[in-house]
Amino acid sequence: MFATKNEYDRGVNTFSPEGRLFQVEYALEAIKLGSTSIGITCQDGVVLAVERRVTSKLIEPSSIEKIFEIDSHVGCAMSGILADARTLVDHARAEAQNHRFTYLEEMLLQSIAQSVCDLSLNFGEGDGSQKKPMSRPYGVSLLIGGVDKNGPALFTTDPSGTLFKYKAKAIGSAAEGAQTMLQEEFKTDLSLEDGVKMALRILKQVMEEAITSQNVEVAVVSTQDKIFRRLTPSGVEEYLTSL
Amino acid sequence: MFATKNEYDRGVNTFSPEGRLFQVEYALEAIKLGSTSIGITCQDGVVLAVERRVTSKLIEPSSIEKIFEIDSHVGCAMSGILADARTLVDHARAEAQNHRFTYLEEMLLQSIAQSVCDLSLNFGEGDGSQKKPMSRPYGVSLLIGGVDKNGPALFTTDPSGTLFKYKAKAIGSAAEGAQTMLQEEFKTDLSLEDGVKMALRILKQVMEEAITSQNVEVAVVSTQDKIFRRLTPSGVEEYLTSL
Amino acid sequence: MFATKNEYDRGVNTFSPEGRLFQVEYALEAIKLGSTSIGITCQDGVVLAVERRVTSKLIEPSSIEKIFEIDSHVGCAMSGILADARTLVDHARAEAQNHRFTYLEEMLLQSIAQSVCDLSLNFGEGDGSQKKPMSRPYGVSLLIGGVDKNGPALFTTDPSGTLFKYKAKAIGSAAEGAQTMLQEEFKTDLSLEDGVKMALRILKQVMEEAITSQNVEVAVVSTQDKIFRRLTPSGVEEYLTSL
Amino acid sequence: MFATKNEYDRGVNTFSPEGRLFQVEYALEAIKLGSTSIGITCQDGVVLAVERRVTSKLIEPSSIEKIFEIDSHVGCAMSGILADARTLVDHARAEAQNHRFTYLEEMLLQSIAQSVCDLSLNFGEGDGSQKKPMSRPYGVSLLIGGVDKNGPALFTTDPSGTLFKYKAKAIGSAAEGAQTMLQEEFKTDLSLEDGVKMALRILKQVMEEAITSQNVEVAVVSTQDKIFRRLTPSGVEEYLTSL
Amino acid sequence: MFATKNEYDRGVNTFSPEGRLFQVEYALEAIKLGSTSIGITCQDGVVLAVERRVTSKLIEPSSIEKIFEIDSHVGCAMSGILADARTLVDHARAEAQNHRFTYLEEMLLQSIAQSVCDLSLNFGEGDGSQKKPMSRPYGVSLLIGGVDKNGPALFTTDPSGTLFKYKAKAIGSAAEGAQTMLQEEFKTDLSLEDGVKMALRILKQVMEEAITSQNVEVAVVSTQDKIFRRLTPSGVEEYLTSL
Amino acid sequence: MFATKNEYDRGVNTFSPEGRLFQVEYALEAIKLGSTSIGITCQDGVVLAVERRVTSKLIEPSSIEKIFEIDSHVGCAMSGILADARTLVDHARAEAQNHRFTYLEEMLLQSIAQSVCDLSLNFGEGDGSQKKPMSRPYGVSLLIGGVDKNGPALFTTDPSGTLFKYKAKAIGSAAEGAQTMLQEEFKTDLSLEDGVKMALRILKQVMEEAITSQNVEVAVVSTQDKIFRRLTPSGVEEYLTSL
Amino acid sequence: MFATKNEYDRGVNTFSPEGRLFQVEYALEAIKLGSTSIGITCQDGVVLAVERRVTSKLIEPSSIEKIFEIDSHVGCAMSGILADARTLVDHARAEAQNHRFTYLEEMLLQSIAQSVCDLSLNFGEGDGSQKKPMSRPYGVSLLIGGVDKNGPALFTTDPSGTLFKYKAKAIGSAAEGAQTMLQEEFKTDLSLEDGVKMALRILKQVMEEAITSQNVEVAVVSTQDKIFRRLTPSGVEEYLTSL
Repeated sequence: MFATKNEYDRGVNTFSPEGRLFQVEYALEAIKLGSTSIGITCQDGVVLAVERRVTSKLIEPSSIEKIFEIDSHVGCAMSGILADARTLVDHARAEAQNHRFTYLEEMLLQSIAQSVCDLSLNFGEGDGSQKKPMSRPYGVSLLIGGVDKNGPALFTTDPSGTLFKYKAKAIGSAAEGAQTMLQEEFKTDLSLEDGVKMALRILKQVMEEAITSQNVEVAVVSTQDKIFRRLTPSGVEEYLTSL
Repeated sequence: MFATKNEYDRGVNTFSPEGRLFQVEYALEAIKLGSTSIGITCQDGVVLAVERRVTSKLIEPSSIEKIFEIDSHVGCAMSGILADARTLVDHARAEAQNHRFTYLEEMLLQSIAQSVCDLSLNFGEGDGSQKKPMSRPYGVSLLIGGVDKNGPALFTTDPSGTLFKYKAKAIGSAAEGAQTMLQEEFKTDLSLEDGVKMALRILKQVMEEAITSQNVEVAVVSTQDKIFRRLTPSGVEEYLTSL
Repeated sequence: MFATKNEYDRGVNTFSPEGRLFQVEYALEAIKLGSTSIGITCQDGVVLAVERRVTSKLIEPSSIEKIFEIDSHVGCAMSGILADARTLVDHARAEAQNHRFTYLEEMLLQSIAQSVCDLSLNFGEGDGSQKKPMSRPYGVSLLIGGVDKNGPALFTTDPSGTLFKYKAKAIGSAAEGAQTMLQEEFKTDLSLEDGVKMALRILKQVMEEAITSQNVEVAVVSTQDKIFRRLTPSGVEEYLTSL
Repeated sequence: MFATKNEYDRGVNTFSPEGRLFQVEYALEAIKLGSTSIGITCQDGVVLAVERRVTSKLIEPSSIEKIFEIDSHVGCAMSGILADARTLVDHARAEAQNHRFTYLEEMLLQSIAQSVCDLSLNFGEGDGSQKKPMSRPYGVSLLIGGVDKNGPALFTTDPSGTLFKYKAKAIGSAAEGAQTMLQEEFKTDLSLEDGVKMALRILKQVMEEAITSQNVEVAVVSTQDKIFRRLTPSGVEEYLTSL
Repeated sequence: MFATKNEYDRGVNTFSPEGRLFQVEYALEAIKLGSTSIGITCQDGVVLAVERRVTSKLIEPSSIEKIFEIDSHVGCAMSGILADARTLVDHARAEAQNHRFTYLEEMLLQSIAQSVCDLSLNFGEGDGSQKKPMSRPYGVSLLIGGVDKNGPALFTTDPSGTLFKYKAKAIGSAAEGAQTMLQEEFKTDLSLEDGVKMALRILKQVMEEAITSQNVEVAVVSTQDKIFRRLTPSGVEEYLTSL
Repeated sequence: MFATKNEYDRGVNTFSPEGRLFQVEYALEAIKLGSTSIGITCQDGVVLAVERRVTSKLIEPSSIEKIFEIDSHVGCAMSGILADARTLVDHARAEAQNHRFTYLEEMLLQSIAQSVCDLSLNFGEGDGSQKKPMSRPYGVSLLIGGVDKNGPALFTTDPSGTLFKYKAKAIGSAAEGAQTMLQEEFKTDLSLEDGVKMALRILKQVMEEAITSQNVEVAVVSTQDKIFRRLTPSGVEEYLTSL
Repeated sequence: MFATKNEYDRGVNTFSPEGRLFQVEYALEAIKLGSTSIGITCQDGVVLAVERRVTSKLIEPSSIEKIFEIDSHVGCAMSGILADARTLVDHARAEAQNHRFTYLEEMLLQSIAQSVCDLSLNFGEGDGSQKKPMSRPYGVSLLIGGVDKNGPALFTTDPSGTLFKYKAKAIGSAAEGAQTMLQEEFKTDLSLEDGVKMALRILKQVMEEAITSQNVEVAVVSTQDKIFRRLTPSGVEEYLTSL
């Protein structure tokens, strides 16, 4: 059985006899090797929180960036291959700016997430431009969170280009444990404050190292001003103390 | 025998000694991995109904979309790879709009279905445009249903680009059981109301999870106004109660 | 011996040590998997008849089309891969129309058949146009029949691009049995009426299912008006009753 | 030893350790699978004669064409893959017409044969035009015969692009036996009449089926008028009777 | 297990079942074969120091260059494949000059390092220009150090295109031992003088050959004038004497 | 050991672990399969002589051409693949004509030979023109002989693109024996007459068949008029009689 | 272990698990198969000397050229594949001429050597021009020696594109022995006269055949006039006598 699988899993776009595309499934595994990211939709905003793996005392933790601003009202957290995340985020930023320029309004979160999925789906297919496409699926999942005219929302994208809307979602190496905890603790009437605490509480439990203000990264978008904001290390410190 | 098969089934366009194209046959398997979809032609319209696989309590069921509007008078339900469905549906939408624009009339259902088949047939062959073609067969089947000047009709397309017209058809993982039930219960004088009930009754029996207004999606096109309409969750709820 | 064969049969254009091109031979096998088609030249016209494989009670038999009109004076029946047939027929239609437009006369049957063969021969070679050519031989045989200024005639084409003129010919899964019967029964002074009956009588014997007006398709071109005509189900019914 | 050979014979242009190009040698085998063709230079013209393999009573023998006119003063007989012969003959026809148009005189037989060889040699190399070249050697040999200002002559071409001038030559499945007979019987003072008889006498002996006016094809170019002429079935019949 | 790994590690962009890209990981190994390089951020500047492997008495040590100036305020030390380093450095130089020309200010160190990472990430993907991209990951790591408006800083890049900011970092064959020593000895209040001494002291311990002013290369950028400067052999000699 | 060799010898441009390019070495073998050619520099000219392999009594020996005129003052004899020789000779002819046209003088023999080598070296590399290059080394060696302003000279070229100047040289299947004889018999004060005799005497000894005026081909360039001349069969006959 | 190596060494640009690029290492082996070359920097110039392998008494030794003039002030000696050397030398000549034309001064030796390395590094990568790049590393090493405004100097290049400056260097099949002797005998105050003698003395010892004025090639560039000069056979003879 394993031997049979081997014979179909190296061609990027080859179906196995069971109708599966293994290279896409393996790209999903790349995400499970990545650090854990959590996103939570609250009543008054959205929280994104990720684990930073600081492998050396001499590294500057702030240079390990895993949360990105896409537009002023939307950001994303990533798990998987950093390089691939950058490509998808650059694409999303351009789409969001084009939308603002063309329609004089902010782009809907779902549309932004869909544009990321479209690119993921079409890896290797080209788009008529001169730019050579990726020759493998994108090995990254994004948690795209923010606030638009429909209120706060959280979308997930993955290497197969599939889009889902979640109330709360964890991805990365500790996704399974974190998701179970989210499912137990999530309530629809969470405040943004409580959302940040829940995200940090869960990260604290699933991270192998002790959580500090240096090895996590947190960002929020509040419904009040629809502005993407990163928490400062001292801001994170306060929350950690309160746990 | 299995070994022999293995030797011809990885080339996308390689004949086996028996004259078979295995990659196309494997793509058909991808559809059997997908969720179940049902289409029924009634006297006064067409019903499309699909199962939604909601894998987490925190997911927004409405973000799992498997029925698409192609034009105001026609929609489709899909089983298989979502990304491939989107490509085929986008193609069908463009063709339908071009037809309206050029001939000032709605495109016939059969012509729409044929244009989807033409694209499926020619995967990998290119069409003279700069866009690089798919490098594998499309791993998706569509149930294209609607109402045109010839009345209500339902067409199926598959990865081999073959087109059939059906009175009632089920595709996806539970296609076999559902099709048997359709064959037993289908009558040509079904009303649209009865069609929706029959589709939901069959999905209820073949779905592994208990059916709810959240984990199925239903759409109809009535002969009265020839307009594609999605049922609201409460609309679906009413039908489920009546079963 | 089988092992040796295997080593040369996957390259589309690789000679085996015996000088054979296996992929073309395997494409010929694809035709033997197809439904049976029969063509008969009569004194006053040509008959084309094919078996329709109706796999479900809910399918519309009329949506299974295996006989195509090429021009008003010529049609064809196919066995093999439907998608490939459509490509060859589209090519033949364009050639026939170009001929009419350029020379103000109908194209000769042999010229139409030759143009289909030219395309079959050159699969994979390109024609200088931007359209990417087929990357494998066409897995289809056509029976091209009609009436031109030389009277009624029947030509066959196959994946190797070879052209023959036949008085009567069967192709597809039951070709062997049907051809034997044709060889026994064919006479050069057949009337079109008798030709249709002979075709249906032979199909009746070689088809696995009982023959009905729904699971066969018949078309004729008469010398009287040189017009391609499909028989209606009731027309077929009459002939079947008379057998 | 056979295993070693296998390792170099699939690449179209790969040398084996002995310096051989196997794909070209295998293409030569394709010719040995073909029907037998004979060409004879006589004092007053050239004879071309080929065997027609009529595999069914219902086939029209005249639709099996293996002798082609290249220009009014030159024709050719082929053994091997019909499709490849057509490509080479089309090339030769264009070259001959270009020559007539440019120099207002008929093209020399050797020049015509050389132009066929040039194309054969360069299979896969391209000629700067947009037309994609053959991706394998041409699997065909031609006997190019006719009359030019130097009198009657016969040239042979083969897949390696090698050109020879012969007094009399047989190619195809029975080439060996036929060539032995030619070597025994050929005289330089043969008349065209005697040449036709000799060709038919040899074909009669090497063909597996009984020779008839239907299963052979004969053409001549006489020094008298330098015109390529096909013999009619009744013309062939007369010669056969006289044997 | 090793066998399984082998099957996925030759395709440049093929995921293994565990979601890993082996060719990128192997490129990281190329760096471990290279000579050792050390970078240290001090209070008043940045130090770069590398080992020179002088394999022959007749070689001119000065022709072995492993530290490069990128712009007047920034340089880099490399470990791995020299050729790849040159490509990345040339790219960084062009980016830095473009920035100066466009914005009339020096480019930030992080932006320079990011531009190197962008090129590393996109090996094999092309950038729309006519220049053919690398067909494998770049087998080199850079220590990019200098002084910009944010003060002295040190960034690392690697074949996966990942960017980190370090206070002090060693790369190359003796990276492990050297990094341990850096971690023990590094203090944030180091003077540039002490930084050079620390770098040379560590190199002295990890190098297999005895350290001389000929087989090491040292460069500094001081906060005083923000100018990249190479130490002369006699300058290095003085430091070595002082150890 | 043989197995190891096999693994590197099919890639046209792949180095073996010993640094060898096997496909070029195999092309050299192709020459050893060819007929034998001999070139001799004499005091008053150059002789080229080749063996013709006449495989059938009915073949016209004159149609087997293995000596070619390149320009009026220079010719060449070939061993190996005839088709490849024609390509190289065509290239040399064009270069020689261009030189005459541009500089109004004859091209030096060494320059002509170098231009052939340049093409041989660059097989597969392309020259910026639209013409697709050879996809394998040229399987042919040339003996380029003639008279230029430096007097008579003889150059050899081979598949590796290496050029040598020889006083006398044999290539082809019997090269070894013939070269030994040349080394024994050659004197620098040979007359052209004696050179022709020596070439024929050596061919007579190494050829498997008895030498006749039909199965050898001889050409000379004399210092008197610097004109390439082929010997007529009767001319050859005279020399053979005199042996 | 050997088996593992085999699996990574055929891809031109594939890393092995240890981070090595085997095809480049094999190209280095090609140089060890070549004849021996020696370069020596003297006080008043540079010496280049190479072994000529004269394989036949009938070959003209002068036609075996392994030392090339690049510009009037610089030449090079090569070991390895002659064809590759010619490509690199042509490139260096063009660069040197461009420099002279653009800056009205001679190009520095290091810049010339660097331009050769740049081309070596980028084999297979293309440079934006239409010329197809090499599909394998260049199998050649050059000793580039001459005199520029910085005095006499000697640079080496190899298939990996690495550049070194040497006081004296031997490459080719006997490089190891010759380099040991150079290391023992070299002094910085050598005169050009003594340099030539030392080069010939070392070649005499490492060559398998007895050294003569025919089987070695010597060139010098003196600081006096900065002119590249080849020694005549009689000039070499004098030096050999003096040994």
